[in-house]
Amino acid sequence: MAAEIFVKKQTIDLRKKHIGPSCKIFFSHDPVKIVRAKGQYMYDEKGQRYLDCINNVAHVGHCHPDVVKAGAQQMELLNTNSRFLHDNLVLYAQRLQATLPDKLSVCYFVNSGSEANDLALRLAWQYTGHKDIITLENAYHGHVSSLIDISPYKFQHLSDDERNQTVHVAPSPDVYRGKYRADHPDPASAYADEVKDMIHGVHEKGGKVTARHSGVCGQIPVHKNVSSGLFIFQDMRLQEETNQKEHNNPCDTGGIHIAAFIAESLQSCGGQVIPPTGYFQQVAQHVRKAGGIFIADEVQVGFGRIGTHFWAFQLQGEDFVPDIVTMGKPIGNGHPMSCVVTTKEVAEAFMSSGMEYFNTFGGNPVSCAIGTAVLDVIAKEDLQGNALRVGGYLARLLEQQKEKHPLVGDIRGRGLFAGVELVKDRLTLTPATAEAQEVIYRLKEQYILLSADGPHRNVLKFKPPMCFTEEDADLVVGKIDQILTELEEALGLKLQNALSLENGSSKRKLPAEENGHVYLGALSHDRGSSRGLPQQAKRLRT
Amino acid sequence: MAAEIFVKKQTIDLRKKHIGPSCKIFFSHDPVKIVRAKGQYMYDEKGQRYLDCINNVAHVGHCHPDVVKAGAQQMELLNTNSRFLHDNLVLYAQRLQATLPDKLSVCYFVNSGSEANDLALRLAWQYTGHKDIITLENAYHGHVSSLIDISPYKFQHLSDDERNQTVHVAPSPDVYRGKYRADHPDPASAYADEVKDMIHGVHEKGGKVTARHSGVCGQIPVHKNVSSGLFIFQDMRLQEETNQKEHNNPCDTGGIHIAAFIAESLQSCGGQVIPPTGYFQQVAQHVRKAGGIFIADEVQVGFGRIGTHFWAFQLQGEDFVPDIVTMGKPIGNGHPMSCVVTTKEVAEAFMSSGMEYFNTFGGNPVSCAIGTAVLDVIAKEDLQGNALRVGGYLARLLEQQKEKHPLVGDIRGRGLFAGVELVKDRLTLTPATAEAQEVIYRLKEQYILLSADGPHRNVLKFKPPMCFTEEDADLVVGKIDQILTELEEALGLKLQNALSLENGSSKRKLPAEENGHVYLGALSHDRGSSRGLPQQAKRLRT
Repeated sequence: MAAEIFVKKQTIDLRKKHIGPSCKIFFSHDPVKIVRAKGQYMYDEKGQRYLDCINNVAHVGHCHPDVVKAGAQQMELLNTNSRFLHDNLVLYAQRLQATLPDKLSVCYFVNSGSEANDLALRLAWQYTGHKDIITLENAYHGHVSSLIDISPYKFQHLSDDERNQTVHVAPSPDVYRGKYRADHPDPASAYADEVKDMIHGVHEKGGKVTARHSGVCGQIPVHKNVSSGLFIFQDMRLQEETNQKEHNNPCDTGGIHIAAFIAESLQSCGGQVIPPTGYFQQVAQHVRKAGGIFIADEVQVGFGRIGTHFWAFQLQGEDFVPDIVTMGKPIGNGHPMSCVVTTKEVAEAFMSSGMEYFNTFGGNPVSCAIGTAVLDVIAKEDLQGNALRVGGYLARLLEQQKEKHPLVGDIRGRGLFAGVELVKDRLTLTPATAEAQEVIYRLKEQYILLSADGPHRNVLKFKPPMCFTEEDADLVVGKIDQILTELEEALGLKLQNALSLENGSSKRKLPAEENGHVYLGALSHDRGSSRGLPQQAKRLRT
Repeated sequence: MAAEIFVKKQTIDLRKKHIGPSCKIFFSHDPVKIVRAKGQYMYDEKGQRYLDCINNVAHVGHCHPDVVKAGAQQMELLNTNSRFLHDNLVLYAQRLQATLPDKLSVCYFVNSGSEANDLALRLAWQYTGHKDIITLENAYHGHVSSLIDISPYKFQHLSDDERNQTVHVAPSPDVYRGKYRADHPDPASAYADEVKDMIHGVHEKGGKVTARHSGVCGQIPVHKNVSSGLFIFQDMRLQEETNQKEHNNPCDTGGIHIAAFIAESLQSCGGQVIPPTGYFQQVAQHVRKAGGIFIADEVQVGFGRIGTHFWAFQLQGEDFVPDIVTMGKPIGNGHPMSCVVTTKEVAEAFMSSGMEYFNTFGGNPVSCAIGTAVLDVIAKEDLQGNALRVGGYLARLLEQQKEKHPLVGDIRGRGLFAGVELVKDRLTLTPATAEAQEVIYRLKEQYILLSADGPHRNVLKFKPPMCFTEEDADLVVGKIDQILTELEEALGLKLQNALSLENGSSKRKLPAEENGHVYLGALSHDRGSSRGLPQQAKRLRT
């Protein structure tokens, strides 16, 4: 196919006509038309190069020749479903398994992170015989209906009546802006205790829980092999079994009925949040005690991105093993594929329902060849090592920005997964949303692709292809420096007191609203120019 | 990658270790290892050729060079998400739209038939503000949790408590085995009236319907533009609007609250069922009158397979246009992709919720290049015409089998989508399940891949790659002839009375159970040999 078939205006018009208007585009008032890409660079129809700081899907670099070759060769040979034996499937499963703790040994291959997370819920419901799910504030787990239900990022504007009553939202373990901050003596325990309290809350209204989905209640011997696989307090198990016998239906019990806790190992859309170490262990303990399991969503952050480990849940320590890990975006470098990995016990409980699981495209030989090639490239080019090195370098550059710019409230991240939270005030943490959007927009004008996310859309999100270099980091941070300097000048912002009154530890009230108005005033003043910030913010919410 | 990495035994062992046991394999006691495929043929690790009569996913032929080339070239150039403008996306949407009625103009690209059907439900819930779904007996619409809920093929063994109470199952419009048969003067109306009655039933228990999913009730101006797009009785709309005003929540009304009727245009897993012409029109009328929309699932049967039309819903006549069409399997010749197409009105209502729809892999340039290449090959090689011609030839051959073999109860189909229903008795229609499994198994021993499905697993299912030839049809039907002859000899079955007492029209009681026992007896007698049928049936339920 030619690089360009339509002129840009035609492409836009056809898109308006034929593509669902809910499918948003970056920079909607002046979108970018990309016709080719290589490594960490994308090129528009005029040959202009963009530095790509956001596409974690193009994990080993856009159009990596090894991945393209593996896909093309297998496409020529065979592409069919997994009802036939094929070596690619088992080889790839074996290779993936080798990156995980031994217990996580059984794979289900599917086509997207959404399919993976939906299957994870089905596994949890079936294995536990329970229905209730605990999810985190601002979480995003996918676009199918069951996942909208567990994604506050999507459903938070809905009324209580419109939400799924079996889904419970725990506070985001955000030590910068959350309930317990960096100054708290033990934020991991504090946030985990919130989950524990939530479980008790669910228990108290236990009778309300009903089996609406297939495979929920009383269908299989609940926790048949649970003692061999999971951390369960035996006394509570016994109590539950007694309840089940009495009621002849585990859902009738006023007892334990959590199906799962699900969280991204590092929250991405939720604002690049890094949970405090030990949080997952404690949550897992509470959840397993309540008969539930722990699902770690690695769709955004897996496959070596964090540098020190292959999986982000491993940041919590070797003593932590989730019951289910879901994968997605980077797994096939853009090829539609993904995977759910779980324990033998969970897999056997799922099978015991008697319901076959068949996924037409999942685990086809092409997807598995591509997945294997991605693993090969990560190893061959030491991309995990690169993420550690370049990620560390990027973090140091960004820390310097924090020292210099009052708009920079927090720098956080691991490896090539980083967030820069912009605030109007380091004490009140008033989100600098319009400013974040302005940074993104001005970077785009300088051919750098970055995005802003989080509940306030004020967190600059770095998740570039893993071949990102120190030079790339210099380039993007240099540009950000310039933009922040200009913005702060326009806003009349100076560092001054802010540095001495560092964030988070303080509950002291400052005139936040007033400050907000001052800043907005400054921005309004700037609106006389062609780039009024509120307007930008609106058009940039892509 | 080498054609074979592991010896077959190792592949099987690794599969047992690392692949979810719910993922079934064909011929589980002696599965087939396929290493390459071309056109309508698959090849095992020893180079043995199999004739493929079942893989409708490999629509234009396994590994079609044009499709492989389009995919490989685009993979080299760019593979990224639809937040950037790309011509492949809009070109492909335009091409797909051209195959559909004008009203169906808005596309959402996703990764699988399951993602497509789940999105169709979300669109229906959002557009109508209602929740209840009517689905057909034996229907299968996908593997994500929302679709298990509407797939009796999957959930029918669950208890009432375990089923989703907002899902209602209408009788399958099967004129061979269903409630109204070929002898009925107007089966289309009779089956459609069943849906109408069901809607009234749903109305009567209206108060039970609650908004559990996001975007269900009161969130958008319900049916804002409905008059422009859909067939709606204005008086009922007015009544509904009045109810809404009174209750301030459309879900509180005891009035109209069907969200959608969903059906495969021709039921596949459900037993290759061809609904009588006019059924969809009448159902659509009833459903739209009740505020709902019509979803046609073309995942199995679309893209010219039926020969006379590009889409199977078009068999119902030009006056029938669904509100949503979902696509899948054949769309990318094996590449994981799919699409939902709907009207502008439905798409705008979905957008009006304010919730973005983003699908990471959906509509990427590689998928769109592949989809376009598939459309090109269908046209260039006149595969729709081939389906008509070869399908017609196959149907004639199969009709001859029916004349010859008492086990053949019914021949039905359109183009290269055909079903052969095996029965032990043409009057009682006792399913010849074990015999169907035996046919499949013996064909496999003769290197022909066919499957049996339907609620009784007694329907031989033909849905081969579209390049299937008359010689292929001769080969498979010749083998079936031999196998049926042998089976009937072993069972002592002769045509005799059966022919004169043709199926369906009769409610006359024959000693069905007795006949069944006679046949089972014959099979039991045969169990002394190495191929006892009940045993086969068990091992072949793959």
